[in-house]
Amino acid sequence: MEIVEVGPRDGLQNEDALVPTPAKIAYVEALVAAGARRIEATSFVHPKRVPQMADAEAVMAGVPRGGGVSYIGLVVNERGLDRALASGVDEVNVVVVATETFSRRNQGMSVAEAVASFGAISARARAAGLRVTATIGASFGCPFEGEVAPSAVGALVRSCTDAGADEIALADTIGVGVPADVARLVEAARDVTALPLRFHFHNTRNTGYANALAAVSLGAAALDASAGGIGGCPFAPAATGNIATEDLAYALRRSGVASGLSLSGVVGAAAFIEGELGAPVPALLGRAGDFPGALSPERG
Amino acid sequence: MEIVEVGPRDGLQNEDALVPTPAKIAYVEALVAAGARRIEATSFVHPKRVPQMADAEAVMAGVPRGGGVSYIGLVVNERGLDRALASGVDEVNVVVVATETFSRRNQGMSVAEAVASFGAISARARAAGLRVTATIGASFGCPFEGEVAPSAVGALVRSCTDAGADEIALADTIGVGVPADVARLVEAARDVTALPLRFHFHNTRNTGYANALAAVSLGAAALDASAGGIGGCPFAPAATGNIATEDLAYALRRSGVASGLSLSGVVGAAAFIEGELGAPVPALLGRAGDFPGALSPERG
Repeated sequence: MEIVEVGPRDGLQNEDALVPTPAKIAYVEALVAAGARRIEATSFVHPKRVPQMADAEAVMAGVPRGGGVSYIGLVVNERGLDRALASGVDEVNVVVVATETFSRRNQGMSVAEAVASFGAISARARAAGLRVTATIGASFGCPFEGEVAPSAVGALVRSCTDAGADEIALADTIGVGVPADVARLVEAARDVTALPLRFHFHNTRNTGYANALAAVSLGAAALDASAGGIGGCPFAPAATGNIATEDLAYALRRSGVASGLSLSGVVGAAAFIEGELGAPVPALLGRAGDFPGALSPERG
Repeated sequence: MEIVEVGPRDGLQNEDALVPTPAKIAYVEALVAAGARRIEATSFVHPKRVPQMADAEAVMAGVPRGGGVSYIGLVVNERGLDRALASGVDEVNVVVVATETFSRRNQGMSVAEAVASFGAISARARAAGLRVTATIGASFGCPFEGEVAPSAVGALVRSCTDAGADEIALADTIGVGVPADVARLVEAARDVTALPLRFHFHNTRNTGYANALAAVSLGAAALDASAGGIGGCPFAPAATGNIATEDLAYALRRSGVASGLSLSGVVGAAAFIEGELGAPVPALLGRAGDFPGALSPERG
């Protein structure tokens, strides 16, 4: 199972304390050493909007290249794409939010405008040889509008597929979903796309890991997670905590699903960023320890 | 779906700070008001072994009776059963641990001795008209022996069924299990018993809610949970935190499964005990809030 490490981007962007660039690079280095091969390293957004990501170029200039690691940059507009291309990312991730209210508040445009923007970004990124992901934000519920119909998500999946995505990510931005929602959204997506499906879960209400395991059983190609379980969305109230990479890798390994990650390596990366942030991370494996008697260092 | 509220017993027994008896009773009253109808209220163990439970008789004397609420007392020997009977509990829960090492450390007897003890307790409790649960501790893994074979759990389920249990509870005492384990144990139990299956999960490694939802889908009759997610086992290293009643009830409600609980009522009970304990509880719903726009007060 492919785990996309989003700690350096989604994990850090919600933190008030600015993490120095060398520490971000060291966090990425630790993740690569732990086996991470797809890493959302930064976000090319306006520094005034997300100050934590103001050093996107410097981070990308410092991370270790080669070894089969693919770096993803989040972009929200063509200016961001220009920066991402100049920084040498391998992939871009573009968010299209599922509801009008959240789209306007998060990105200052309507859903239709966001889809059009995605198409423009996607065309240029693909022409440059980059893999392009369309993330459908708030697919499981909206902080402003509440319920989101799977059919509405399906329509966006179709639009983004038509507009040139290589991968579709369905995001539970505010952490409200349950496995039954995952099943409904997989069905809605499968009706309209053959692209690989990636899922992005927050553990805001303790349903994130159940959702992740449900997604695996339903054929998801990739899952986002952040080492330490740090992260959230600064524009969504109470959206705290990606699912933690180490806790997810533990659950997968005990389920007989390989992730290629060293659990102790990810725990170490989480401990490093915990020290930088100065507050306990939400992940539990580092505190509880591995399954009693499990070999160490083990690979999930 | 029946949720057995274990906060007053398993939740509190791992807390160092002694909670005054009136506060325990108020916690139970809040849980009853929130809709709890089956409550593990206390444990009739030696006060030197679990000082928090030294007031078992006083708690049982003070909790609200009637209204269809069934109170469970945990007992580990016949002396405990005598106290439970005198205190007027409606049910007893007896733990038989799945591995020799943990059984000897936890209860000072072999597994075979524990099964024999269960038979003696069960016969007397049933003669007195009480419902009897056999909880198979460490069914998902042992802190001392590691892996536990489902066949070994199955053998104990059969023994306890033969010895007169009305219900079998499979406990992940140290919080190591995953949904695939739940499926294996349901299969092993179903091979040897027709009794209702109850599950007891700890969220020690963030797999507890996934396990609970898996158990529901596999036909479990009841799930243990503690309001606030407090609790653990003082004799198992790092076994902290039952799954939280409110987070479980949220996940069930969003899955279309009724629990009969008021989510806001359980959140209130958790806030009360949080105040008594003086430390944040692990449950997340009270911090994150309900699904945006959900009716309040709602019943799951």
